Amino acid sequence: MTAESYLHRAFLLAKQADPKAIRPNPFVGAVVVSENGEILGEGFHQKAGEAHAEVMAIKNAIEQGANLSACSLYVTLEPCSHTGKTPPCTDLIIQHRIPKVVIGSLDPNPQVSGVSILEKHGVKVEVLIIPEIVTLNDTFNINQILKRPKYVLKSAITLNGKIADRSGNSKWISNEKSREHVHQYLRTAADAILTTAKTVIQDNATMNIRIKDQPEEELNLIVFDSKLELLQKENQHLSIFYKRNKSAIYLVTDKAGIKPALPNVEVISIPMQDGLFNLEMLHKELLARNICQVLIEAGGSMNASMMQAKAVDEIYTFVCPRILMDNAAIHQFNSNQHQTMDNAVKLELQGSMTIGEDILLRHKVIH
Amino acid sequence: MTAESYLHRAFLLAKQADPKAIRPNPFVGAVVVSENGEILGEGFHQKAGEAHAEVMAIKNAIEQGANLSACSLYVTLEPCSHTGKTPPCTDLIIQHRIPKVVIGSLDPNPQVSGVSILEKHGVKVEVLIIPEIVTLNDTFNINQILKRPKYVLKSAITLNGKIADRSGNSKWISNEKSREHVHQYLRTAADAILTTAKTVIQDNATMNIRIKDQPEEELNLIVFDSKLELLQKENQHLSIFYKRNKSAIYLVTDKAGIKPALPNVEVISIPMQDGLFNLEMLHKELLARNICQVLIEAGGSMNASMMQAKAVDEIYTFVCPRILMDNAAIHQFNSNQHQTMDNAVKLELQGSMTIGEDILLRHKVIH
Repeated sequence: MTAESYLHRAFLLAKQADPKAIRPNPFVGAVVVSENGEILGEGFHQKAGEAHAEVMAIKNAIEQGANLSACSLYVTLEPCSHTGKTPPCTDLIIQHRIPKVVIGSLDPNPQVSGVSILEKHGVKVEVLIIPEIVTLNDTFNINQILKRPKYVLKSAITLNGKIADRSGNSKWISNEKSREHVHQYLRTAADAILTTAKTVIQDNATMNIRIKDQPEEELNLIVFDSKLELLQKENQHLSIFYKRNKSAIYLVTDKAGIKPALPNVEVISIPMQDGLFNLEMLHKELLARNICQVLIEAGGSMNASMMQAKAVDEIYTFVCPRILMDNAAIHQFNSNQHQTMDNAVKLELQGSMTIGEDILLRHKVIH
Repeated sequence: MTAESYLHRAFLLAKQADPKAIRPNPFVGAVVVSENGEILGEGFHQKAGEAHAEVMAIKNAIEQGANLSACSLYVTLEPCSHTGKTPPCTDLIIQHRIPKVVIGSLDPNPQVSGVSILEKHGVKVEVLIIPEIVTLNDTFNINQILKRPKYVLKSAITLNGKIADRSGNSKWISNEKSREHVHQYLRTAADAILTTAKTVIQDNATMNIRIKDQPEEELNLIVFDSKLELLQKENQHLSIFYKRNKSAIYLVTDKAGIKPALPNVEVISIPMQDGLFNLEMLHKELLARNICQVLIEAGGSMNASMMQAKAVDEIYTFVCPRILMDNAAIHQFNSNQHQTMDNAVKLELQGSMTIGEDILLRHKVIH
């Protein structure tokens, strides 16, 4: 077996974790391989605050009677070198005299200098960057590098880019299977939905996770609601106010000092400038609440302002077999700014998928 | 072999024809099959004015020494029963005492009553409608039923449905391979491009067929040019005025009695109402010139007005990895009419194709 194939095994282990259970940590998998190429230990990071992948794999190898001083460790991510909720993995590797470590991706966190610490202690380190391993930790990498959640924007559009007619009616551009896809994949992967009070009031959507033959699941909801309209009595019948046990509604406003009487409703107070919230501050507030990945499901104006603030990483667009031939229909991105072709936002096509007669396009935004 | 498989063989023969050589006729293929299931004759319609498929297949079978009175004829389209440029095929079948005819699609032309005439003469007729055979003659069927050319609309759009920025610049939304695809498939299949004087002047495109490693090919061009701007001296340097030997530029205007001095340029005079040409009259003028399939490559206003006139059968959309975040950018369909979601134009997805990072979507319009 090659180094790549041991790393691939570690990658498959890493992927077994429930992404929400490990937040804000990355996916990590590790295997311990003997001198003659046999895998003697395996492990992956399963839950934030609990053992790292390296610890699990080394423990597993010891149970199998491995002579660690003659083994190699393959790990999908550069081992940690700092004390967080658990001691540094580099210490463990050094302590067990593991002579060689092969790493599938580097840690973007500047606090982590696992490679150099291991090398300083005489461990032979090989760095073999595997693109799919890097991609697996997309959310973690964005959190670390950009100090903000990963933002995924989802729209269902007519062929010609409209998300609703001029009166705001969007029911239904996409088909049922596409809408199921949103629940099963996009909402399930997100720690919260981000939307506006206008959308909440207009659509009266529940904004939770509904998957066929499964109990409904709660999902955090962040609502741009500068006027705190959702706290008004006439809006308290809205579907988002379902009984929440493990999720919250975060109302974002520039008003200060308001404590809602409603259960599981919290106000996040953020200053505004020119009618827009200071997103840098929002990013921090969300990360502090362990909200690492956000799904934007909103109208054209929020879509445009998040894009303009470079706070969209991926766009999922359901292109549906309809045309709304009306310039006053709601655009996917509603902006009156002048943009020339040369300054158009560049995307990178990640993939496409046919769902009935809808086509789901997945794009990465090149900022 | 089954009846379907003989019809499939006839279908493959039919498809061998050059669509432009047979205009305005349909694709037709035929096979003569002996009692013991052997194919003794094959033929397909190759050129307008020349032999029909049935004639070719029967002639071929006779050369092979077939006893036609013990054979079956499989033909993709209901045999003709009227005298056009060639005598009716039903006569030939009856004259040769072919006892059984299997037909893959019915002729939409009400002048054709091949089935009933054959049955009246004791021929056993089986009608076995094969969807792909019907689709093959889409253009012919539209010509016959709707008394107009088939109109195919092509656009290259940003993800959010814009075809150019607000100054009209569209270079380039789609990638090079997509643009090659337009030449190789969409323009090649069309008898003419339909556009506006505005687009011709703005883009100064050649509007011919350019395929790598092949000589450039001419293509008829129909231009909505009510003011006959293209006849003005300052526009005669435009790329569309390349030397034409076998194609023409048709300028559509409501002005009457104008004969351009330019070679291969013809004026089609059509009345206007509320700023729109009478399309019924245009349809007739085009069919009279053997223009059976038209590719619309124009701006948002023509796209919308052709759609509103129900004169678009298929839409090819290249969805490209760009976003033009500007409500004043040019929309794929430019219309200020109020259209509600319930009245949105319905499309049927026919297929999709990835071309680099562009996605080509093919939709049928449901009128």
